Amino acid sequence: MTAALGSKTSTGRALDLGPAVELVSKEEGHRQPLAPEFVSAEDFSPLEVAYDFGRIRREDIESGPRNIWRYKKLLPVPSNVEEIPNTEPGCTRLVRADRLAKALGVRKLWVKDDTGNPTHSFKDRVVAVALAAAREFGFDTLACPSTGNLANAVAAAAARAGWDSVVLIPSSLERAKILTTAVYDGSLIAVDGNYDDVNRLATQLAADRETWAFVNVNVRPYYSEGSKTLAFEVAEQLGWRLPEQIVVPIASGSQLTKVDKGFRELGELGLVEASPYKIFGAQATGCSPVSSAFRDGHDVVQPVKPDTIARSLAIGNPADGPYVLDVVNRTGGAIDDVSDEEVVEGIRLLARTEGIFTETAGGVTVATAKKLIEAGKIDPDAETVLLITGDGLKTLDAIENHVGPKATVPPNADAVKAALGK
Amino acid sequence: MTAALGSKTSTGRALDLGPAVELVSKEEGHRQPLAPEFVSAEDFSPLEVAYDFGRIRREDIESGPRNIWRYKKLLPVPSNVEEIPNTEPGCTRLVRADRLAKALGVRKLWVKDDTGNPTHSFKDRVVAVALAAAREFGFDTLACPSTGNLANAVAAAAARAGWDSVVLIPSSLERAKILTTAVYDGSLIAVDGNYDDVNRLATQLAADRETWAFVNVNVRPYYSEGSKTLAFEVAEQLGWRLPEQIVVPIASGSQLTKVDKGFRELGELGLVEASPYKIFGAQATGCSPVSSAFRDGHDVVQPVKPDTIARSLAIGNPADGPYVLDVVNRTGGAIDDVSDEEVVEGIRLLARTEGIFTETAGGVTVATAKKLIEAGKIDPDAETVLLITGDGLKTLDAIENHVGPKATVPPNADAVKAALGK
Repeated sequence: MTAALGSKTSTGRALDLGPAVELVSKEEGHRQPLAPEFVSAEDFSPLEVAYDFGRIRREDIESGPRNIWRYKKLLPVPSNVEEIPNTEPGCTRLVRADRLAKALGVRKLWVKDDTGNPTHSFKDRVVAVALAAAREFGFDTLACPSTGNLANAVAAAAARAGWDSVVLIPSSLERAKILTTAVYDGSLIAVDGNYDDVNRLATQLAADRETWAFVNVNVRPYYSEGSKTLAFEVAEQLGWRLPEQIVVPIASGSQLTKVDKGFRELGELGLVEASPYKIFGAQATGCSPVSSAFRDGHDVVQPVKPDTIARSLAIGNPADGPYVLDVVNRTGGAIDDVSDEEVVEGIRLLARTEGIFTETAGGVTVATAKKLIEAGKIDPDAETVLLITGDGLKTLDAIENHVGPKATVPPNADAVKAALGK
Repeated sequence: MTAALGSKTSTGRALDLGPAVELVSKEEGHRQPLAPEFVSAEDFSPLEVAYDFGRIRREDIESGPRNIWRYKKLLPVPSNVEEIPNTEPGCTRLVRADRLAKALGVRKLWVKDDTGNPTHSFKDRVVAVALAAAREFGFDTLACPSTGNLANAVAAAAARAGWDSVVLIPSSLERAKILTTAVYDGSLIAVDGNYDDVNRLATQLAADRETWAFVNVNVRPYYSEGSKTLAFEVAEQLGWRLPEQIVVPIASGSQLTKVDKGFRELGELGLVEASPYKIFGAQATGCSPVSSAFRDGHDVVQPVKPDTIARSLAIGNPADGPYVLDVVNRTGGAIDDVSDEEVVEGIRLLARTEGIFTETAGGVTVATAKKLIEAGKIDPDAETVLLITGDGLKTLDAIENHVGPKATVPPNADAVKAALGK
């Protein structure tokens, strides 16, 4: 295997993170050895994984397991990653969405349905990669601050691996969201404070507890690479080609930039033709700092205080916001945002046309796609993919006051027929 | 393709249900043409689909789509079923469960995780087959009585196909369960009555409304065949061989008998070696008529009034109970039942060892497997598969009073460390 340039694990043997060779700072390209670090000491920009891929053939991937480890030669994970206890996310459905296409007035539409992952969101992808890298660095506890999907994914992955997990949540979190993490029996800690307090605490603990891998803090460069697998799967499922347009929800912005990185890597490696594609970003108006910056033509992002039902996207100061603007501008895409009412209508539209029940983030994606189509920004004749990254079962409150039975009737057949007019 | 012996669709063209050729009564083997009927007029026993399979090779299956339609030559569905709008369930994970195996004291254990289906239960399999057959018979509405998984699956499949759905529920159903069906925007009808009233109403309407396909009533022989795909996938995922032992939850009992049928068909067709296997059945003690009959050595099943948290298994008068007893006795398996407390512990054990969060039915399966292992009925040295057929997100109430945060702390790092003793 390709060497990590002499890096060693905590036990002294050579570090095996597959094709990963170094970390590089996003702003000025400073290089440093692979390590559990996330910010460059040189230019204070985020660190990203650099690779020496060598030659990768489609057959190598196609003969791999039916999960993200089929792409292990494109990820910062050990060469034998599929043999090590972890979750096996990925290879979720790419659904041809003709009824939704008709409703939106476009010719050819696909939905990447990531609700099929082990804990029903794309977070299983990034957490699985974070766990694989963290184990190689000698960590023994998987940790995160979270109020939802990330907490579920971290607690589940740690359980399967036989690790402890430390998940920090605000103590005011709804009971249902506590249960879906607590069931995995890790160290779930309720903090008397708001989400900002919890986040601050995570950063302190990541610096302090050297055996705890906070997936989105100290091992973030590895974690975030997991989102590339969405791009890899879309391309492979389309028959090894890139879509012309793709719509991606924006929280920190990491996912959108990694989808772009995934498409570029496939093209550079000759795994697909490097055909042009446009990436579109979707936000909720109640937390739309990147959309606002795009609209105003800025290249920096002004933080906002989130106020939206799309809580899984509610990051007011998105770390990768400027890089999202770069990608969208470079590819010729656009970014827009939608109201909470439009989010609910987006959820309902996807459910009634394709039988897919997504969480609020998916509602943001569908509703923003609709808006971008109506505005002529998305070409209705070009093939489009929508990334649906989470499950409606986790955000039932969003539709609580919007859907219900068509009728309530006494228990006889005539009453049912009368109620339906059939 | 193999003809359906001259059967015609409502529009006069030859009926195409793939390899299906006739219906046959389970008791006396009376044969009749394929039709949307479920009880033999000759001996009043359930009707089952009979086939003329011809030759089927592993390569035919392996080159098919990554969903249940790869097995279309073994199902009563049109030859071009994968081209017709429907859900694409199946090809869910078969997870090697070493940590659970260790906890249970067995050598080699697998979990078939059917929570990855479109609406997160195995019901997507049976409903997809029912929809495919119902369309061929000329129906235009998909219907069911249900309080849970089946309602979700029917409403979602109908939405994707562009059909109306008629789902009948008791009006007293919890709001969360109403939302997860109502979101698909079919004709959800709340009935002022209990589940027995709703069931009776479904049977009346199935006889009365000739364009409504009640999936588990008038098209039940086709619907129930969908459960065979669980057996097909387990065998294919094991590398085209049968497991030595498999544990299956029992509601109506249909799934258990179809898993057996699937294994037998694979052996008869030479797709796997027809090696011996044992099938074990799992019930909740609060609704355990089949387990009681097995314990008492009876070949008939005495109906009971269900009282258990495992509501998706709570069928007091299981239609296929006697056939379950036949299968379990023939294969050398066993049936047992577990208390609601054991069900909760089963859910928690699977979550903390393998990171898989199942609904109460899965808790029944895990807890019963544990009991059968401790009793020496399941051989700890023989390879075992557990069927996990539904998702914990749908039965949060079951764990409500059993799991929660390990500690609630003020927002500072020392408090977290103190709480964890680390």
